Amino acid sequence: MTMTVHARKRILIVGGGFGGIYTAMRLQKAVKGRTDIDLALIDQKNYFVFQPLLPEVISGNIGIMHTVTPLRDLCPHVSLYIRKVENIDVEKREVVTSHDVRTQLHRIPYDHLVLALGTEENFSMVRGLPEHGLHFKNLGDALALRNRLILMMEAADSEPDIHVRRPMLTMVMAGGGFSGVEAIAEVNDFVRTIARRYAHLDASELRIVLLHSGTRILPELSESLSLYAQRLLDRRQVEIRLGVRLEAVTADEAILNDGTRIPTNTVIATIGAAPNPVLAALPCQKERGRIVVDATLAVPDYPGLWAVGDCAYLIDHKTGQPCPPTAQYAVSEGKCLADNILASLDGKARRPFSFSAVGMMGSLGHQSAVGDVFGLKISGRIAWFMWRTIYWMKLPGVWRKFYVAIDWFLNLIMPKDIVQLNVAPSESLTREHFEANEIIFRQGDLGDRVYIIIDGEVEVTREDEQGHETILARLKTNDCFGEMALIKDDVRNATIRTVTNLNTLTLPRSTFTTLFDHIPALRDSLEQLVEERERQLGELD
Amino acid sequence: MTMTVHARKRILIVGGGFGGIYTAMRLQKAVKGRTDIDLALIDQKNYFVFQPLLPEVISGNIGIMHTVTPLRDLCPHVSLYIRKVENIDVEKREVVTSHDVRTQLHRIPYDHLVLALGTEENFSMVRGLPEHGLHFKNLGDALALRNRLILMMEAADSEPDIHVRRPMLTMVMAGGGFSGVEAIAEVNDFVRTIARRYAHLDASELRIVLLHSGTRILPELSESLSLYAQRLLDRRQVEIRLGVRLEAVTADEAILNDGTRIPTNTVIATIGAAPNPVLAALPCQKERGRIVVDATLAVPDYPGLWAVGDCAYLIDHKTGQPCPPTAQYAVSEGKCLADNILASLDGKARRPFSFSAVGMMGSLGHQSAVGDVFGLKISGRIAWFMWRTIYWMKLPGVWRKFYVAIDWFLNLIMPKDIVQLNVAPSESLTREHFEANEIIFRQGDLGDRVYIIIDGEVEVTREDEQGHETILARLKTNDCFGEMALIKDDVRNATIRTVTNLNTLTLPRSTFTTLFDHIPALRDSLEQLVEERERQLGELD
Repeated sequence: MTMTVHARKRILIVGGGFGGIYTAMRLQKAVKGRTDIDLALIDQKNYFVFQPLLPEVISGNIGIMHTVTPLRDLCPHVSLYIRKVENIDVEKREVVTSHDVRTQLHRIPYDHLVLALGTEENFSMVRGLPEHGLHFKNLGDALALRNRLILMMEAADSEPDIHVRRPMLTMVMAGGGFSGVEAIAEVNDFVRTIARRYAHLDASELRIVLLHSGTRILPELSESLSLYAQRLLDRRQVEIRLGVRLEAVTADEAILNDGTRIPTNTVIATIGAAPNPVLAALPCQKERGRIVVDATLAVPDYPGLWAVGDCAYLIDHKTGQPCPPTAQYAVSEGKCLADNILASLDGKARRPFSFSAVGMMGSLGHQSAVGDVFGLKISGRIAWFMWRTIYWMKLPGVWRKFYVAIDWFLNLIMPKDIVQLNVAPSESLTREHFEANEIIFRQGDLGDRVYIIIDGEVEVTREDEQGHETILARLKTNDCFGEMALIKDDVRNATIRTVTNLNTLTLPRSTFTTLFDHIPALRDSLEQLVEERERQLGELD
Repeated sequence: MTMTVHARKRILIVGGGFGGIYTAMRLQKAVKGRTDIDLALIDQKNYFVFQPLLPEVISGNIGIMHTVTPLRDLCPHVSLYIRKVENIDVEKREVVTSHDVRTQLHRIPYDHLVLALGTEENFSMVRGLPEHGLHFKNLGDALALRNRLILMMEAADSEPDIHVRRPMLTMVMAGGGFSGVEAIAEVNDFVRTIARRYAHLDASELRIVLLHSGTRILPELSESLSLYAQRLLDRRQVEIRLGVRLEAVTADEAILNDGTRIPTNTVIATIGAAPNPVLAALPCQKERGRIVVDATLAVPDYPGLWAVGDCAYLIDHKTGQPCPPTAQYAVSEGKCLADNILASLDGKARRPFSFSAVGMMGSLGHQSAVGDVFGLKISGRIAWFMWRTIYWMKLPGVWRKFYVAIDWFLNLIMPKDIVQLNVAPSESLTREHFEANEIIFRQGDLGDRVYIIIDGEVEVTREDEQGHETILARLKTNDCFGEMALIKDDVRNATIRTVTNLNTLTLPRSTFTTLFDHIPALRDSLEQLVEERERQLGELD
């Protein structure tokens, strides 16, 4: 074997969001024709999501596939690995990855590594939010939300009981920043428009609520624009609640810190961010979960390691503040980072990051928007037109531009689509949260799942034919309930009410049956339990 | 309260496929303005799938949403219940339903009930097919298949090992009838077209196989058309294997009844049909799982009960044979059934079903088709043009027609989309099938799941640093393996090889961890097991 004296240098980017993609695109242009550099990018999904247009997926204004662009189209000269990053070994200079087809680990070596993994949402600071809250960050989230809205409209249309119907027709958004406001504006437009198609629905029962902990929504903008946005959303029947926070969420309620309880089956949140676990495991310095980088976006003490975008902690030398986690900054950082890696490879001086934000704009749905561009405050239909034009121009890839233009045009003439394309994974194991004094199920209900108590207490009661209620038992951590109806294939023979706040592990019928059939230890302990409970019931009769 | 002397009669249709929808559309037109009749329809999904265009969803020729139409658009004068049918009580004349939001059961009464529940696919006659086979029947199936194909192309592009890459690039279809042939033709077109976008993929490694048990594909057509289709697919590099059946399927192989083993990660099947479980539970007479109806589509001995489409067993008086389960028949039956229900209500005579099939056409992908229309045999581009025209005209709903026309037009000028929109539920509990003498995992592999043996035997072996292999144990029914790596968060410490054919229940890491943490009986028995195994390993060292 022969060896070349000057080995090719490999630049590896992990993450295909704004930061990663703009680094990759700048690099592929700069190294075109150079044979001494290899470019590679790892992401778990094979497409780039253009976040600013994501809210329009909710209402179907833009086709599902049109806010995303295949990575291969954006980076034709970059080797792509569509894989999951398991961990990063900064000593051996390797990224350990896996893919869905086989379980072997693949190690990808690098000379320069760009961390562009963004952040993950963290719902854990609100009771019940991890279990019942909907995210609004990725394409899958937008689709899941759209489907949830249609499901609720369908279910409410044929639901005679107002107490069951009310939470179906109430949608709550927690977080009044840009992404929360844009999403709830689209939700509001969408449900109010399609409500006309449901013959038995009374549109006046729809309730769309925006929660914000500050004194005005869109704190990123000037006060006058915030107030304009508030008035406009108010006119469109969005109920804005300022100075409140979500305190707890159950399947049927949102509970606020001022004690208000809003009956709702749909809580969306854009609050809370946590670092990607792969980054959390790295030995380098972190600040608020973000990787600390110097002014040239290099990670101190780890030559060849860089970070960009939301996962990087970079001080903006103009303001002395950390750069905000926005697409504008990520794009600009990516370009600077690409230049600096090349400067390092070529032994040249690196340049410090410098950027002036052009401004900010937010869509308010239904042909209106607000924004602050070059110091100019704009609002209404003109702002909306500018908003569309700017983002359309920034949308990467000529075909997407074309599709989105067609979508927007068709939108003007076509009715909204209400196909409920079920993409939400039908999870076979979930957690659920209940507040104290809630009914989990009633005697006579359909028995479709089993609950195992993680923490909290419930009371089991049974009503006889004369309507007398007897308390049968109190159950707590590690106890299970709901198994009788499944084992005996019957309706619920008792009512379960929470005594304290309660967290459960919930197994739907199919999962329960499979586990029950194939894990002897589980079957044995359950059969014992059922016997015991039947004896108790027998004594009662 | 006052009561009207003549109560309104409720006609209830269960199922929104071709049979159900055409019954409903005919009825809503006929009863317009009549106040003595209520129309209602129950389906779990809120849209109607136009099956003939489904194959084009695979390649993205038609947008995901454009082969389906919201039921509300087709049946604006029918009360819709988007719910699951739990069972039918023919004595009380009630349909018991549930929906996803709450667990209460809803009972919907009827005077006339139309059964239009179609059939379900049944993979159970081939070993491993239920676990590893892909369906091709509903919109979700078409999307899942499209995503699987893109996943395989992505994974293969960065896979250096030819033995791992080969099954990724091989797609097998079992069933050479219309739906199998149309689907595999689209699969073939799609993967060969997008292969060019993958820099490291060698298109000559792609292998697309069609299995058919008969002596020629498309047995519904004349021999000359079948042979034309075979030649054409052959020219397009589809490998056709006649006179063979699938015998078994594993995650990595398709095994045929002649002993051939095809390394593949993608097996699609259009074979096997089973009745809907709700129908199976009905007391009325059945034939091959279908509900026996008389010539007027009424179920004998159950006045007010009717059946239509694939779930009805109806003798065609012209041929003396049962009507085939095709869309053409279902549409025609639906119209006849609607007329007969109205005749019953109005005390008039019912008419027997009579129908002459117009013909049959099948698309072969890439601007070609074959067909037999009014006794005329056609093929090639002209047939394809006719095929598109006929189905486009039959597509219900004017907006869909418009969208599909746009899609087809854009298709001529735009590159294929390769966004892998992940809609396949990430199942947290699955079954897997392995044939004898397979490696399930190797020492040193990533440990990402636990297996519980349903039936069969495996051998556990370990290799020491000198490469000597020792057999540690044989495991059988109810034993579990793979838990060590998960509990200790390490790579696999042994190799597992199947001794016999093996079926397992498989729990991915997240499910396993959750169960392990919250079910004490399970945790105890596993901890005991781990201790025991560590002692064995300790003795060995």
